[in-house]
Amino acid sequence: MTWVAGADGSAYGVTNLPYGVFVHDGREPRIGVRIGDFVLDLAGAEAAGLVLAAGALGRPTLNDFMTLGRPQWTAVRQRVTELLTDVAHRAAVEPLLVPLDEVRLLLPFEVADYVDFYSSEHHAGNVGQIFRPGQPPLLPNWRHLPIGYHGRAGTVVVSGTPVVRPSGQRPGADGPTYGPSARLDIEAEVGFVVGVPSPLGAQVSVDDFTDHVFGVVLVNDWSARDIQAWEYQPLGPFLGKSFATSVSAWVTPLDALTDAFVPAPEQEPPVVDYLRDVPHRGLDLRIVVEWNGERVSEPPFATMYWTPAQQLAHLTVNGASLRTGDLYASGTVSGPERGQVGSFLELTWGGAEPVQLGGGEQRTFLEDGDTVTITATAPGPDGTTIALGEVTGTILPPR
Amino acid sequence: MTWVAGADGSAYGVTNLPYGVFVHDGREPRIGVRIGDFVLDLAGAEAAGLVLAAGALGRPTLNDFMTLGRPQWTAVRQRVTELLTDVAHRAAVEPLLVPLDEVRLLLPFEVADYVDFYSSEHHAGNVGQIFRPGQPPLLPNWRHLPIGYHGRAGTVVVSGTPVVRPSGQRPGADGPTYGPSARLDIEAEVGFVVGVPSPLGAQVSVDDFTDHVFGVVLVNDWSARDIQAWEYQPLGPFLGKSFATSVSAWVTPLDALTDAFVPAPEQEPPVVDYLRDVPHRGLDLRIVVEWNGERVSEPPFATMYWTPAQQLAHLTVNGASLRTGDLYASGTVSGPERGQVGSFLELTWGGAEPVQLGGGEQRTFLEDGDTVTITATAPGPDGTTIALGEVTGTILPPR
Repeated sequence: MTWVAGADGSAYGVTNLPYGVFVHDGREPRIGVRIGDFVLDLAGAEAAGLVLAAGALGRPTLNDFMTLGRPQWTAVRQRVTELLTDVAHRAAVEPLLVPLDEVRLLLPFEVADYVDFYSSEHHAGNVGQIFRPGQPPLLPNWRHLPIGYHGRAGTVVVSGTPVVRPSGQRPGADGPTYGPSARLDIEAEVGFVVGVPSPLGAQVSVDDFTDHVFGVVLVNDWSARDIQAWEYQPLGPFLGKSFATSVSAWVTPLDALTDAFVPAPEQEPPVVDYLRDVPHRGLDLRIVVEWNGERVSEPPFATMYWTPAQQLAHLTVNGASLRTGDLYASGTVSGPERGQVGSFLELTWGGAEPVQLGGGEQRTFLEDGDTVTITATAPGPDGTTIALGEVTGTILPPR
Repeated sequence: MTWVAGADGSAYGVTNLPYGVFVHDGREPRIGVRIGDFVLDLAGAEAAGLVLAAGALGRPTLNDFMTLGRPQWTAVRQRVTELLTDVAHRAAVEPLLVPLDEVRLLLPFEVADYVDFYSSEHHAGNVGQIFRPGQPPLLPNWRHLPIGYHGRAGTVVVSGTPVVRPSGQRPGADGPTYGPSARLDIEAEVGFVVGVPSPLGAQVSVDDFTDHVFGVVLVNDWSARDIQAWEYQPLGPFLGKSFATSVSAWVTPLDALTDAFVPAPEQEPPVVDYLRDVPHRGLDLRIVVEWNGERVSEPPFATMYWTPAQQLAHLTVNGASLRTGDLYASGTVSGPERGQVGSFLELTWGGAEPVQLGGGEQRTFLEDGDTVTITATAPGPDGTTIALGEVTGTILPPR
């Protein structure tokens, strides 16, 4: 129970408390925690001595705070919970609450490296069927390791940032042509944000996941399928992805997701030792994709074949170091049903089966002016339901 | 002519003047310029009012200086040239010269995003022949666009950093096995360092190359061929590359390379408009690869099919933004002859033809303890020859 009006019973009650960075009233960007429809100014709270975090809360990104490590993350969360639940603190804390509709939310952390995995069996299988019909949908390596690649960290943008339709080379009957992408798509994903770094040459074990990962964001990995199809062999996606990747403005701390862990799908054949996580756990995040306000899909994150702990262990098995701010995304989340897919490529089966939106509009891929919003909920502590921060974006015409 | 002893006639005379970051005498890291066998302390020079650069020379990386843009880069270079050639400045400047063998060189810039291209026709053709014998060596897209992908920025290390042999999954007869890479290789490349950023959604034209690119480094893109072969489909190289990428400690400014531009190979079929650079120019950098001190290859950078201006235009054609510190590498540099290849994969033709090193030792791929050093020279201003900073590394056993 919190004394903040309207927060109890909402998906942003005291069991949630995601972190973000906001601008208000012309002041410097600062860290805040969302509670109900308010943002608690943590920079102000630390300056007033209400919470202690080595000065890290007074910074314009979460990076310094995320470097501190799990004991400090948990201590700050406990203290913030006290401040928002014990009425004795109300007089001191209430002036630090800012209405959400008065703030502008910024990219909450400086992205170090961005890695994108490909860990949904249903997504990889659908893509295989669409692009390689008649062949085995999964490539031979897929069940042995979490396939991934590096994306462009510099074009990770915060939810709400408009996305200019990218141009590039697309395949044509008489060779490639240059022009705006005609197959602009989304990928609904979940991203994991690294707080605690690791040294070059060392491996991070599956057991050390919660020591390194601070929290979770929702991700829309916008994808230009025509550009991607022409460029991706043999070195993988490049310009088909690098124009923009949107993340939610709120980072949900892992401490808010302790009740969301569920057994992950069984893996067959058995994985090699460094990928064996016991317990083998995924997260029960229920994602919703809205296209121009219409709910078109509900991807279940619990169906992911590879878990975030396995992804982290794989990412570092070759000795690659971690930096604070590293972001690794799950890959498109798709469940077994057509109404559970995380891309429009799958929803329209390669563009062959348009979907009907409200007002009789039909869509295959994204049109200029379209808006896509991805949200998610999860079982929170104490029987509550918590929301992850939404990630939304609107397509602008090509320049 | 410089008054610095021993510099005239060396490959680090006043027509070269590369930038680096060094530590000396326990003081904070600072920016310096190499002249002969000395480093000119530019932080000290700026503090003494001998050179003006908005305070950017007092920083521990080149990033702030690189943000200033070409007019400032050229002005600082001209001023440093004056200081080192006009004996009137000798008394003030000489105390700022530090012997090279007393300094430790650091990574000269903070890497924002790292992109690796694949722009040598001979390299791509060799790889095609080795891995897809009997098929056309180049894929259909290769002559239409400079193929590239994102690498891991966080594991870019400065020359001299030891490289721990990476472990991971390698393909085996009965499925993948885990262990140290048995096919550890190099890739001799040239890297371009972005100084001036560009906004998201905008394209950078081929004509704007010199406005954005500050300078050049030598790159060794260490590659574990067995890990790469198993993981790379369908999303490209990941752990086979991400354990370490070495760059030279010295960044050679483009202003030192004005005489090194030469016509690039003719492109057929003609490229689409955004890739048409007039003049179509590459750089006459003559690379040397030494394996345990033995010269094994001399890759000619002038043979590269795609030019750095084309690579930059391609990288941004989809609206991807540039940040200060972005590094994009050419891809392995290989000429038409076996003695001109930039990887040991090619030098030993997939490991089938071992090379003979000094003392009767034979090699296919890298053994623990091996050292690889890549150097390069180029035609400098006024008929001089200038050296690019070397990039060297020694393989350590797996942990």
